[in-house]
Amino acid sequence: MMVKGNCIVGQSGGPTCVINSSLYGVIKEAKKHFEIQKIYGSLNGIQGTIQDNLIDLTHLDPENFELLKQTPSAVLGSVRYCLNKNFSDTDYEKILQTFKKYNIRFFFYIGGNDSMDTVYKLSSFCQQVQYDCAVIGIPKTIDNDLILTDHTPGYGSAIKFIANSISEIKEDTSCYCNGRVTIVEIMGRDAGWLTAGSKLACLNGNAPDLIYLPEVAFDLDDFLKKINELYQKNRKVLVCISEGIKNQHGKYVVNDFVYNNDNDVFGHMQLGGAASVLTHVVKEKLNIPVRAIELNLLQRCSSHIASGVDIHEAVHCGEYAIKQALNNQTGKMVVMSRKKGNRYGVYYHLKDIQLIANQTKFFPSEWIVNQCDISDQYIDYALPLISKEYPCKYKNGMVQFTKIK
Amino acid sequence: MMVKGNCIVGQSGGPTCVINSSLYGVIKEAKKHFEIQKIYGSLNGIQGTIQDNLIDLTHLDPENFELLKQTPSAVLGSVRYCLNKNFSDTDYEKILQTFKKYNIRFFFYIGGNDSMDTVYKLSSFCQQVQYDCAVIGIPKTIDNDLILTDHTPGYGSAIKFIANSISEIKEDTSCYCNGRVTIVEIMGRDAGWLTAGSKLACLNGNAPDLIYLPEVAFDLDDFLKKINELYQKNRKVLVCISEGIKNQHGKYVVNDFVYNNDNDVFGHMQLGGAASVLTHVVKEKLNIPVRAIELNLLQRCSSHIASGVDIHEAVHCGEYAIKQALNNQTGKMVVMSRKKGNRYGVYYHLKDIQLIANQTKFFPSEWIVNQCDISDQYIDYALPLISKEYPCKYKNGMVQFTKIK
Repeated sequence: MMVKGNCIVGQSGGPTCVINSSLYGVIKEAKKHFEIQKIYGSLNGIQGTIQDNLIDLTHLDPENFELLKQTPSAVLGSVRYCLNKNFSDTDYEKILQTFKKYNIRFFFYIGGNDSMDTVYKLSSFCQQVQYDCAVIGIPKTIDNDLILTDHTPGYGSAIKFIANSISEIKEDTSCYCNGRVTIVEIMGRDAGWLTAGSKLACLNGNAPDLIYLPEVAFDLDDFLKKINELYQKNRKVLVCISEGIKNQHGKYVVNDFVYNNDNDVFGHMQLGGAASVLTHVVKEKLNIPVRAIELNLLQRCSSHIASGVDIHEAVHCGEYAIKQALNNQTGKMVVMSRKKGNRYGVYYHLKDIQLIANQTKFFPSEWIVNQCDISDQYIDYALPLISKEYPCKYKNGMVQFTKIK
Repeated sequence: MMVKGNCIVGQSGGPTCVINSSLYGVIKEAKKHFEIQKIYGSLNGIQGTIQDNLIDLTHLDPENFELLKQTPSAVLGSVRYCLNKNFSDTDYEKILQTFKKYNIRFFFYIGGNDSMDTVYKLSSFCQQVQYDCAVIGIPKTIDNDLILTDHTPGYGSAIKFIANSISEIKEDTSCYCNGRVTIVEIMGRDAGWLTAGSKLACLNGNAPDLIYLPEVAFDLDDFLKKINELYQKNRKVLVCISEGIKNQHGKYVVNDFVYNNDNDVFGHMQLGGAASVLTHVVKEKLNIPVRAIELNLLQRCSSHIASGVDIHEAVHCGEYAIKQALNNQTGKMVVMSRKKGNRYGVYYHLKDIQLIANQTKFFPSEWIVNQCDISDQYIDYALPLISKEYPCKYKNGMVQFTKIK
């Protein structure tokens, strides 16, 4: 077959443990096909293409290349950038210049729902100006909130870290006779997928006592009542809350306390997130010992405990994107569907990007039990996603990372 | 040889990843010797002995027994309890009752400097009342602040987690073009050993930009000046601070802001630790984006990334304690000394407990560079301690833990 041209791959949105695994898949598969000559990385997502800031990824040394699969964050740099909906915007002109300059015929964008908006607009633009370039989205987000896919690469590793950390925290906080409430804050401003992952600690007999997702209106009085009952009964209480828990008016709980001057608990300053705020309320109202723990960035960058299944699927999403681009597909995102049957497996296919961009998949209400627990159906769904351990390469006691820039 | 009697082992103080490894070593070695018939666990440290709350550990099933080495926290429960210095206190009477009831001739206590106070008093008491019982301390603390030992079991695993997490955080926070200051808070109220561990991220090229230990008086103006310079130059700044950083008057920085009403930055309420407080100061004074991350309990319970060397040495400390107790030693703690030569190795010996109890080993001032960095000598010292990865057993994607209670 003839050489068709070159390809660009970019990474966008919040980092995950496996966005570089998808990059690995793209590069690995691209190098198998003569239609693709050079593989360029667009630095800091679409910005690199706009600003003609590309690096050549065609000849990475083998060791650094393999390490991509265990490197967190986004080795090409990421960006949060929204293309104008008007194609007369100069960004498009600059992108087209870069495309022409480097004879780009394939563009792959690894990202979440905001990034899929870029895929949508760019593929539409190429079609409108009749520039022959396949534009394909590769899913990635720890939030698991992309629609039309069973789950997203990045989610499995995030909940593997979360579930193991919660299990370890429960072991730790159980060792004293003294009672204590521990409130763990987990990422997810709108969707509760990550916080639900804490439930998997039950596989070790270490389930949290209470789990609060943003999908359920947070009732402070009921929360305090439950905490108090559990504390009186068990002395140790482990609560997992989403950073995005909201009151019945849809207002973030954390803002509620910062700006509500009628509430005497706080000054004008917020020094932390939802767990920190609730810790203070528990201390004030119930006068019991309480500690806040924010899993913070660790939940999206702890490559050392990434899920083997997640890495494997992220690589496959990248490979599949290449194959489908060569199959003349464009304006699509790679999605995963679960195979029927008892044994876990997924198959890969494409969905029109305009169906996915800017949409949010919320945690199913039927998997939420009594407003503060998660059902077994979720465990069945999530367990395969944290399965298998990736055999990370260590040197000097440290997980090794790719350095390509 | 004749049966001499039974033994008690207890765990005390803050949990670590390897306190159960030392328990493993105690049990494993004890079972080899006919002089020791039964091995009892004292639940919640010395409290279990005072209250006659023991469990028989002689016949743990093999699977649960092996899992001890990868179980964080303290499976026997821990305690912070200080025995009275007056031997006429009823605690001693109750301890003696328990000792006599169960024919206890060996008592092993795994703990830090506070716990060694218990070993000291208890061994002195036994000698005074002429009750024949060997009382031996087995070191344990993530803080690495016990004197007369090269390092403490627990420290290596804690800094392996810290160094890897810092390295991952630096990868994560480097992926955007936008600048940001990230302040990571690490445990250690008096000694900076754990915070110094963040320096090991340099092995991945991901060293923190600034490192502040409690051993150096914290100068806020200089801190802000350095942050600002680094931010203007590199846009990304990663700072690691100890929770215990103190001003030139020896007052915790975090208290400084909470109670100092002249300082307009905060209300009357403290919602977080030192990183949270400094984050707010940076925001207010420099008006640059800043985020606080507290590694929190994870740094002492993340068994999934425990150091293989640490587990190995913790086991050996437990085994060595048994051997020496059978050798008629009492009132001593097991210590490790580094072997001479290029290849890392330690040998085990005993030190008199009264030399160790209640003492603190601070981070050496000669290893602190320019008040906010750590020297290569520390790296040479610490690197072997994080070496080797322990092959944790997983099930369903989760690190498995012993359940013995």
